[in-house]
Amino acid sequence: MTFTLSDLEAIVARRAVSGDKSSYTAKLAGKGIAKTAKKLGEEAVETVIAAISEDDAALVGESADLLYHLMVVLHLRQVPLADVLAELQRRTAETGLEEKARRPQDV
Amino acid sequence: MTFTLSDLEAIVARRAVSGDKSSYTAKLAGKGIAKTAKKLGEEAVETVIAAISEDDAALVGESADLLYHLMVVLHLRQVPLADVLAELQRRTAETGLEEKARRPQDV
Amino acid sequence: MTFTLSDLEAIVARRAVSGDKSSYTAKLAGKGIAKTAKKLGEEAVETVIAAISEDDAALVGESADLLYHLMVVLHLRQVPLADVLAELQRRTAETGLEEKARRPQDV
Amino acid sequence: MTFTLSDLEAIVARRAVSGDKSSYTAKLAGKGIAKTAKKLGEEAVETVIAAISEDDAALVGESADLLYHLMVVLHLRQVPLADVLAELQRRTAETGLEEKARRPQDV
Repeated sequence: MTFTLSDLEAIVARRAVSGDKSSYTAKLAGKGIAKTAKKLGEEAVETVIAAISEDDAALVGESADLLYHLMVVLHLRQVPLADVLAELQRRTAETGLEEKARRPQDV
Repeated sequence: MTFTLSDLEAIVARRAVSGDKSSYTAKLAGKGIAKTAKKLGEEAVETVIAAISEDDAALVGESADLLYHLMVVLHLRQVPLADVLAELQRRTAETGLEEKARRPQDV
Repeated sequence: MTFTLSDLEAIVARRAVSGDKSSYTAKLAGKGIAKTAKKLGEEAVETVIAAISEDDAALVGESADLLYHLMVVLHLRQVPLADVLAELQRRTAETGLEEKARRPQDV
Repeated sequence: MTFTLSDLEAIVARRAVSGDKSSYTAKLAGKGIAKTAKKLGEEAVETVIAAISEDDAALVGESADLLYHLMVVLHLRQVPLADVLAELQRRTAETGLEEKARRPQDV
């Protein structure tokens, strides 16, 4: 059973409304969308830095931070991750079709 | 069968090395990690702006862009998404344990 | 006579309202604050990348881009650069006083 | 006598090497270019958010933070602000010439 982004989405949704004072998610969600979006931006900067540096562990950690904060942002805006994944599926499928259209000789 | 981030990771891996001139992924990957990380940063800025604005469709689109570019970054650095998800699982589980430790009366 | 950020502010103000179709400033300003702020964010990402890489010429170029786009943002929001510089003067002076207060033996 | 960005550059240069433990500049500079560039990126995100929100005071404060951290970045990379301003002068002058070339009837 692998852990998925949807599992994370569910955990974030649960903790955000838990009122648990020891939960970072509850505290962050309580600060609202502007503060949470700001944190998302900061984690993105750190991911960019980790990406162009040579430290794989840092890239794993920062990517995890980035995905986590994106889940809190989506939660606060009540946008389901499923909508984002559906959009990604649509785009990648579209590209496949476009490519096919352009190169009909392809299998 | 829902589309997952792992599906996207697999598509990105395939297209990045396809040599297909009509593939955005192949073109982006060919530019290297610095340019790709820069694009990731730009998409993060757009996600932040969409998050604090009121447009759900924009947030879906920008989140999709962000996740996509993160997949290309991870691919170029040869970091498996599984490592990032394992890190997220570890962190969220840890938090659970910490919370349990602090509140032993909890079920 | 050295070129200052205030000179740039004045040039940006003039071009933003020039209606000149060949002016990047006029075009950018015409797109409004959201698009301009987005560009500012993108230039910041590029400045961060240039800063941690070893290319001085890139850092000069990206810093110039960052300052330029900040001037367009301030113009569109009708915030004078003088207010920002006054804030910087106030902060650095305050720090000076705080430091003095803490180290009364200092000259 | 107005406070300029060059004044800030000089203050940053002085404090960065002061060894003063109460100085934020000395502490930040001591952390090196990666941490300082990260802070620059974070301040840029905050400036973008302030720019698209309606709070002028926030925009003044965040722009001040952005300019300050840019000065620390330039200091750590030993890139003179004068080089950045010269680049801005060159670019804006060039644009002037281009515009002139295209519209010879202009004064």
